[in-house]
Amino acid sequence: MTISRLATLRKMLRRRKLDAILVTQPDNRFFLSGYTAPDHGIGESSGVLLIPRQGEPFLLTDSRFTLQAQQEACDFQVELYNRGLISLLNKLLPQLAIKRLAFESTYFLHSSFNKLEKCTQKLAIEIVPSTDLIEKSREIKSEEEIAALHLSTQLNEKVFQTIYSQIEPGISELELSLEIETTMRKLGAQRPSFDTIVAFGDNSAKPHAMPTERRLQDGEIVLIDMGLIKDGYCSDMTRTFFMGQPDELYLQRHRVVRKAQLAGIATIRAGAVCRDVDTAARKVIAEAGYKEAFAHSLGHGVGLAVHEEPRLSNRSRKKLRSGMVVTVEPGVYFQGWGGIRLENMVIVRDDGCELVNTDTTHLDL
Amino acid sequence: MTISRLATLRKMLRRRKLDAILVTQPDNRFFLSGYTAPDHGIGESSGVLLIPRQGEPFLLTDSRFTLQAQQEACDFQVELYNRGLISLLNKLLPQLAIKRLAFESTYFLHSSFNKLEKCTQKLAIEIVPSTDLIEKSREIKSEEEIAALHLSTQLNEKVFQTIYSQIEPGISELELSLEIETTMRKLGAQRPSFDTIVAFGDNSAKPHAMPTERRLQDGEIVLIDMGLIKDGYCSDMTRTFFMGQPDELYLQRHRVVRKAQLAGIATIRAGAVCRDVDTAARKVIAEAGYKEAFAHSLGHGVGLAVHEEPRLSNRSRKKLRSGMVVTVEPGVYFQGWGGIRLENMVIVRDDGCELVNTDTTHLDL
Repeated sequence: MTISRLATLRKMLRRRKLDAILVTQPDNRFFLSGYTAPDHGIGESSGVLLIPRQGEPFLLTDSRFTLQAQQEACDFQVELYNRGLISLLNKLLPQLAIKRLAFESTYFLHSSFNKLEKCTQKLAIEIVPSTDLIEKSREIKSEEEIAALHLSTQLNEKVFQTIYSQIEPGISELELSLEIETTMRKLGAQRPSFDTIVAFGDNSAKPHAMPTERRLQDGEIVLIDMGLIKDGYCSDMTRTFFMGQPDELYLQRHRVVRKAQLAGIATIRAGAVCRDVDTAARKVIAEAGYKEAFAHSLGHGVGLAVHEEPRLSNRSRKKLRSGMVVTVEPGVYFQGWGGIRLENMVIVRDDGCELVNTDTTHLDL
Repeated sequence: MTISRLATLRKMLRRRKLDAILVTQPDNRFFLSGYTAPDHGIGESSGVLLIPRQGEPFLLTDSRFTLQAQQEACDFQVELYNRGLISLLNKLLPQLAIKRLAFESTYFLHSSFNKLEKCTQKLAIEIVPSTDLIEKSREIKSEEEIAALHLSTQLNEKVFQTIYSQIEPGISELELSLEIETTMRKLGAQRPSFDTIVAFGDNSAKPHAMPTERRLQDGEIVLIDMGLIKDGYCSDMTRTFFMGQPDELYLQRHRVVRKAQLAGIATIRAGAVCRDVDTAARKVIAEAGYKEAFAHSLGHGVGLAVHEEPRLSNRSRKKLRSGMVVTVEPGVYFQGWGGIRLENMVIVRDDGCELVNTDTTHLDL
């Protein structure tokens, strides 16, 4: 797998007249090497790939990770930078006769750039910021990756269905989110793909609510936004429902959101422009009089990262391509009342799109 | 709390002739504002502080976080950047008559810097990279912060003691780490402060081992490195022991590590140089013939971040100061055999140091 990905990357390097690239972004690092160690924040890197246009690629890391690096990144030569990355690059770059070196501008600290610049200037190496060289090839998923996204979603839905019976008045947002995340891992997920959102009542008016001690009462909204990582691939799903008998206002608003979701999905196919998909869903919500209440984008790509390209945003002129996988998640939020968001994942195909989710709980009321 | 921290920061701004600072680093953002939303990676910021030398400070965020920002950052004016941070800065900076603006170089992407540079050049604003302006004031903990670190550690030890009885042959590394992290949250932690390390047998030879399906057998090493976050503050503790009757080699190596830990702790006091503390512990391990087996630094600061300044490293000439809180965690690692690491946290005082930990399980064998 990583061999063919490396070949694709090297073609891109050749096309851009680059001699090598430094890969710092952890998902890109895994995508190309199979090395799974995560970064604990950008300041605590578990390693950097140095991939020359030809010859053996390197995984540069420190002694804490030697064994894991050697076991996982079999196609890479592991080199240790116990005196810092720059000092190792100082040694390696001249040996490899690199003259033009790309680095990942969107995952490279300003402070690290300063050091890299000093080092490469001395070595007469030109450094070239790259923003999406590897992200671009990650946008379109292979059928193996789509299968992995299916498995991740299936597991996510199984977790939802497992915890669903525990959602009763009296449970707190924190208790429920902990139960969800524990169940994820018990059923085989590596970890949640993001902090699980469990929001009751008017807490659900915050699109990115954090769970609190608040306990569920009858007659309140329940919003759950959850995802997990399985074998490296993310899932992401949101369900909103009413505890007890929903009132008319809830029903009406929920149906608007669902209608907007379906309207968005109906426009998704290879060739569709991202912002047009966003517009199709947004129009439904605006026509219902809730334009201001839908204050985020319609969706985002999902893969090794839970939020990646493409973005279904009213600012994106990107065209969808077959094999892209995106969420469709319209929502309306009213301070003091609550929010409703419904989210499914779809695979873009030539003639339309394919739903990744099979769970239909509380979608059509 | 945040008012006095803002006052300290403003003094530093004046001293450096800076008109304002952009605070992007999430711990710094919380430290100064009380706003708790985490970043999901550096590419997904939950907000940025813009703190002018005088006048009201701002929390810049997007509409997903409006409510939370207003509730938590009471001393800040919340402004939304739904068209991007740069476009909002373009509007705000001229209004505030800012001429010299600091930004956090160690938490600012190269790609974002390029945009900021373009924007500020047009506005004739000088931008000044800052590497540790706020981190510096975080190094020395107030007594309130020390109390919070005590509470975090007490809870961490309670979790360790709670799960200790479950450590029996047959349990897997993954099961035990999940049990630890679930117990943390059930007992009131916000989350683990890092991915819990549970390593059995020769897996413990990786200082940053990730839990696997491997099941514990009698006669194997058990290494557990765990920490949690409570009220924003981190704990961090490592215990290593032998399942069953330890053999002579294990006992000897364990005692060397413990002796090294005590030797390091004995040198800690205000005025001691970080690398001298590292050397004191390293010497004990070297004298036992295990110099190569101790391949990481002796310790690190702990506070809002689980790894922060100061570093007890053989490269750090920094002097310890009263109120700093550091881990002391020597270790020895042998591929094919396993590893032993023992870690406690201490508070630096004028006349020595004070142990934060009270747990003594498996320290002195």
